[in-house]
Amino acid sequence: MNHYPASLKQLIDNLARLPGIGRKSAERLALHILKAPHREADLLAGSIAEVKRRVRLCRRCFALSESDHCPICANTARDQSRICVVEKPADMAAIETSGGYSGTYHILQGALSPMDDIGPDDLRIAELLNRVKAEGPAEVILATGTNVEGEATAAYIAEKLHLLSVRVTRIASGVPMGGDLKYVDQVTLKRAMETRHDT
Amino acid sequence: MNHYPASLKQLIDNLARLPGIGRKSAERLALHILKAPHREADLLAGSIAEVKRRVRLCRRCFALSESDHCPICANTARDQSRICVVEKPADMAAIETSGGYSGTYHILQGALSPMDDIGPDDLRIAELLNRVKAEGPAEVILATGTNVEGEATAAYIAEKLHLLSVRVTRIASGVPMGGDLKYVDQVTLKRAMETRHDT
Ligand SMILES: [Zn+2]
Ligand SMILES: [Zn+2]
Repeated sequence: MNHYPASLKQLIDNLARLPGIGRKSAERLALHILKAPHREADLLAGSIAEVKRRVRLCRRCFALSESDHCPICANTARDQSRICVVEKPADMAAIETSGGYSGTYHILQGALSPMDDIGPDDLRIAELLNRVKAEGPAEVILATGTNVEGEATAAYIAEKLHLLSVRVTRIASGVPMGGDLKYVDQVTLKRAMETRHDT
Repeated sequence: MNHYPASLKQLIDNLARLPGIGRKSAERLALHILKAPHREADLLAGSIAEVKRRVRLCRRCFALSESDHCPICANTARDQSRICVVEKPADMAAIETSGGYSGTYHILQGALSPMDDIGPDDLRIAELLNRVKAEGPAEVILATGTNVEGEATAAYIAEKLHLLSVRVTRIASGVPMGGDLKYVDQVTLKRAMETRHDT
C-alpha cells in the first residue's frame, strides 16, 4: 500500500472510510477504478456529487426527495390519511418493495438510543406530532424496528400520539414467513406466542 | 430501491458496478454518502478524478506512477541490475511490503490466459525483452502467480529470455510459512516435496 502513488493511496484511504469496506477491499476497488474507462470513473465521481446536490428531505414526511415534496406525498392515488412511521429511508424502501402499503410515510431519521446520545429532539418526532395535529390522519402506523431502540421509539411516540386521540397501530412482530421455528430466536418466538390470535 | 430519488438510484447503480459490491452493499454505501458531510463526499469524488488524472504507467517498468519514471526506477539505492517480473501492481506492492527485495520490477499487466483471450501481445512482454536487450541485467526473476496462468506466463517468458542469455530465476513455491501441512493443498504439497533441498 505504501508503494502506490500518492493519489492512489489517497483514493484507497477515502474508500476505506466507507462502512463495511476494509483496507484490502479499498485497494481492490481503487485499482479497479484506475483501470476502468475514464467514462466509468467520471460517472461514479459525478453521481456522488449529484446525489449530494440534488437529494434533500421531503418537507412533509422527510423522505429522500429531489423536490420539496416527495412523489408519495404528491401522489393523490395514495391514501394521504394514513402515516407509516419508520426510522430510516431504507425501511421505507423495504415497505414500498413489499407492496403491502398504499399510505404515506414519516421518516424519523433514526431511533431513540440513550447509548448513542440520540434523544427525541434528534429525531423528527416534533414534526410528526405537528403533522398529526394539522392533518388529523385516520391512522398512524408505527413501523420502527423490533429491536430495543425501535420498540422504545414506538412506545415513546405512541404515548405522545394517544394525547392527540388519533388511532395508533404497531406493525406485527413474530415468526418470519417461510421460517422454520427451530431457526427463530427465543425472544421472537416468545413474543409470537404471547401475541397469538384466533384464526 | 425503486422508491429512491433518481440521482440516488444512479449512484447505487454506479457503485453496484464495482467488483465485489452487490446491490445491497451499493444501497448501504450510497445512503452513507448521502448522509456524510459534504466535505467527505467531495474528497471521495475528487480522489476518483485525481487518480485517473495523475496516475500513469512508468515508461520503463510499467508500475503505477505519477511521473514518467516511478520512484523505484529513479532510486539509485535500488539494485537497477535486477528485474522482478510480476503480473499486476498489487503483486509488486505485496513484494515491496514483504521487504525481501531491493531490485526493480517489470509489471506485465496480466498473465497469459487463452480462456480470456489474453495472449503475449496483450502483456508488456515485448517491452520486457527490449528492456533486457538494452539494459543487460544481471538477473530476471519471474514472480508471476503459481496458478496455471502464472506458470504458463513464466514458462513463455523464460523461453524467450534464454535466447538472450540472461540469468532467469523463478520465485520458490511450496508450503506457506507458519502453515500446518494438513491445511496445505495437494498440488502445493507435491510440488514442495519435488523441489525439496538439502539444508
Ligand atoms: Zn413526503
Ligand atoms: Zn519504474
